[in-house]
Amino acid sequence: MINENKAGVTFAKGFKATGIKAGIKKSGNADLAIITSDTEAAVAGTFTQNKVAAAPVYVSKDVVKTKTAKAIVANSGCANACTGQQGMDDAHKTAQIAAAELNINKDDVIVASTGVIGVTLPMDKIETGIKAAVPTLNNDGSDAAANAIITTDTYTKSLTTSITLDGKEVRIGAIAKGAGMIQPNMATMLCFITTDANIEQVRLQTALSEIIEKTFNMISVDGDMSTNDMVIVLANGQAGNNKIIENDENYQIFYQALSELCCQMAQKVAADGEGATKFLTININNARNFRDAKLAGMSIANSPLVKTAFFGQDPNWGRILCAVGYSGVDMNPENTEVKIGGITIYSNGLGAAFDKNALQDIMSEHDIAIDINLNMGSTNATVWSCDLSYEYVKINGEYHT
Amino acid sequence: MINENKAGVTFAKGFKATGIKAGIKKSGNADLAIITSDTEAAVAGTFTQNKVAAAPVYVSKDVVKTKTAKAIVANSGCANACTGQQGMDDAHKTAQIAAAELNINKDDVIVASTGVIGVTLPMDKIETGIKAAVPTLNNDGSDAAANAIITTDTYTKSLTTSITLDGKEVRIGAIAKGAGMIQPNMATMLCFITTDANIEQVRLQTALSEIIEKTFNMISVDGDMSTNDMVIVLANGQAGNNKIIENDENYQIFYQALSELCCQMAQKVAADGEGATKFLTININNARNFRDAKLAGMSIANSPLVKTAFFGQDPNWGRILCAVGYSGVDMNPENTEVKIGGITIYSNGLGAAFDKNALQDIMSEHDIAIDINLNMGSTNATVWSCDLSYEYVKINGEYHT
Repeated sequence: MINENKAGVTFAKGFKATGIKAGIKKSGNADLAIITSDTEAAVAGTFTQNKVAAAPVYVSKDVVKTKTAKAIVANSGCANACTGQQGMDDAHKTAQIAAAELNINKDDVIVASTGVIGVTLPMDKIETGIKAAVPTLNNDGSDAAANAIITTDTYTKSLTTSITLDGKEVRIGAIAKGAGMIQPNMATMLCFITTDANIEQVRLQTALSEIIEKTFNMISVDGDMSTNDMVIVLANGQAGNNKIIENDENYQIFYQALSELCCQMAQKVAADGEGATKFLTININNARNFRDAKLAGMSIANSPLVKTAFFGQDPNWGRILCAVGYSGVDMNPENTEVKIGGITIYSNGLGAAFDKNALQDIMSEHDIAIDINLNMGSTNATVWSCDLSYEYVKINGEYHT
Repeated sequence: MINENKAGVTFAKGFKATGIKAGIKKSGNADLAIITSDTEAAVAGTFTQNKVAAAPVYVSKDVVKTKTAKAIVANSGCANACTGQQGMDDAHKTAQIAAAELNINKDDVIVASTGVIGVTLPMDKIETGIKAAVPTLNNDGSDAAANAIITTDTYTKSLTTSITLDGKEVRIGAIAKGAGMIQPNMATMLCFITTDANIEQVRLQTALSEIIEKTFNMISVDGDMSTNDMVIVLANGQAGNNKIIENDENYQIFYQALSELCCQMAQKVAADGEGATKFLTININNARNFRDAKLAGMSIANSPLVKTAFFGQDPNWGRILCAVGYSGVDMNPENTEVKIGGITIYSNGLGAAFDKNALQDIMSEHDIAIDINLNMGSTNATVWSCDLSYEYVKINGEYHT
C-alpha cells in the first residue's frame, strides 16, 4: 500500500530534511534541499546513462562506491553540467561544506543538481545556503525538501509505504522532481528514497538496479535523457529488523515495497510532464521478450504523432500501430491488437467497429490506457508517458538562454 | 548542377505525366497522378522499413522484382494501409485498371498511396479517375502530377539535372511529396524519379539503394516512419548512351548526378516539414564510423528540446550536447566541439565566449547549420531536419479521425 504522504523522506526513523531559498533560482523559490540520516546508512544509487553527465553525478557515484552515506545535498536552479574541472571542484566543495556543517565525512555526502547547464554553481550562495539550512533540519522537513528540488513540476511528489519484517515496522519514503525544465534548460529526474530497513548495501543496490529498469526507466516525457538524472536510496537500519543479507522472504517483501513505491513515483513524474494534459499507460502484452516490449512501448511514448493525437483527443490507432511498426520489434500487423481504454479499435489487420461515444468519453479523460497485444510471445511490460501540447512547445521554445 | 524545374519527371526523353482531381481528397484538390514511360524502363525502388507497410508497398516491391516498369499510379487522400486483404486486392486492381487503359502489362505498373490509414481506396473514384487521367498524359504534365501527390506540403517539389555520357545528353528529373500529413493521418515521403539513361536494372538498384542511405534516410521531421514511403526510379534508355552495366566512369557520373538530385530533394522535404519555421543542417564530423555519425545527427534532429529551442531561436548548446550524449555513440564531452552557423559555442568541455549579436542574427535565419566535431575518428555525415513549432502541434493535434 503506497500512500501520498508529505512525510516523504522523513517518514522512516532517523531521517531529517529541510529545504530553503538560497538564491540560486532567479524566481526566488526554494532551491536547496538537505536530507540526513542520524546514523550511517547503506547507500544505493542509479545515475543517468548520458555520456554528457554532470559533475554531481560523478561525485555521487564515488560516494555510492563507498557503500555508506549520511546526507544528500541537492540544489535546483543550476545543473552544474558541462562545467569542466570547475564544476567537479564545485561539486566536491559542496560536499565538503555540508560535511563540515553536519560534522560528518565528506565521503558520506551525496550531491545532486538540476537546472541550467553550462553555468557554474554560485558557490557563495551554496555555502551560505548550506550553513543556513543545516540548523533547520527536522523530522518534519520532507515537504520543504520536496519543494526545493522541483522546477516546472506542477506539484511536489512524496510517497510512503511500510512493511513488517521480523515483527518490526519498516518504513520507506521518497520525494522526487519530475521532467520539468529549469529556466528551462534541461529535464532532470531526481528521486531520493529513505528507509529505516536494515539491509546490506550490495543487496540494496541490486534491488534498486533491478527495480529502476521496470519503473523509472520505463517513463518518457519527451525522449530526452538528462545529464543529471539520479535515484538514491539511504537505508539506515533503525527499524531494527535482522539485517537483510540474502534473497530471502524479508528481502522479497522489502523488494516488493520498494518496487511499488518506485513504480508509483515514476508514474507521478510521467503524469506531470511538461505541458501534459494526458497521462498515458502503455501496456505491451505478449512480446517476444522484455527488450521488444520496452522498445514498442517507448516508440509509442515518444512518437510526436501519437502524443499530439492524444492531446487532440483523437483515438488515432494508425499512428500507434505505425510507431510499433518502426520500433524494430518482432511483430506482424495481422496478429496485433490495439485497445484504447479497454475498447478494441484494431484487430485482424483491420480497424474494428466500436462505440464512438464510449471511446470519445475515454479520450476526454486525463488517464488513458493503451493496450497492445503483439501475440509474439509471453512477456508484458508497461511504459508511462504523457501527451505533447502547445504548452510543451511554449515552455521549451519561449525561453532564451 | 541541380535545377528547380517544373519539368520534373517529364524532363527526360520519353516520359509523360498527368495529375487530376479524382474526388479521393475531401478538399477537392488534385489527388491522382500518373507517370508513364513510352518504352520499357528499368525500375529500381526503395520502400519503407516499417513492419506495418501499406498494400501498395507490397505490390510495387513485386513490380521492382520484375526489373522493368512503364507506369506509376499514385494517389493522395487515402494511404491504403492497415486495410487487410481488401487493401491488397484494391492495390492490384488499381494496377490492372491502369494497365488496361495504358495497354501495358499489369506487372509494369507501380502503385503508391498516401493519406488516411485504415480506410480502403474508393475504387469507383480510382477507376473513373484513371480512365479520365490517361488521355491527359502529356510531355508537360509533371507539375500536375507533383500537385496531385502533395498533401500538407506548402509547395510542390520538382528537380532536374543532366549529364553527358558517350556524347549524349542524359536527363534525370524528379517530383516528391514531403512529410506532410494527409487529413492528417500519416506522414509519407514519396519520390518518383525518371531518367532517359540507358542502365542495367541491377546497377540502377545498387545506385539507388546506396544513395538513399545518405540522402532520404538522413532526414527527419518528427522521427515517425511512415507505412507508405517509397522512392522509385524509372530509366528508359532513350538518351541513347551505351548501356551502363558496370562500375565504370559513366556509372560514376550518373551515380553522382542521381546522388546530388536525391540529396537536394531530401533537403526540400526536410525544409518543408509540418509547421517548420527553420531548416537545420546537422553536420557530424570526425565520428568513429558512419553509424555513429548518423545516430548522433538523428538524436539531435529528433530531440523535442533541440527542435523547440530552434523554434524559439535560442542557441541552446546544452540541449544539443545532451542529445549527442544519450545517442549511444562513442564520444567524450571534453573533446567535442559544437558550432552554430560557424560560431563555436562549446569546446574543451565548456561553453565558449562568442559574439551574442552575431549568433542571434544566425538564429533568426531560416537555414541554420549545426556542426558537431566528435574528434573520435574521421567519418563525416549530414542529417537534415526542421524545428518543432506550435503549428506542428496544431496540424497533428487538431484533426479528428
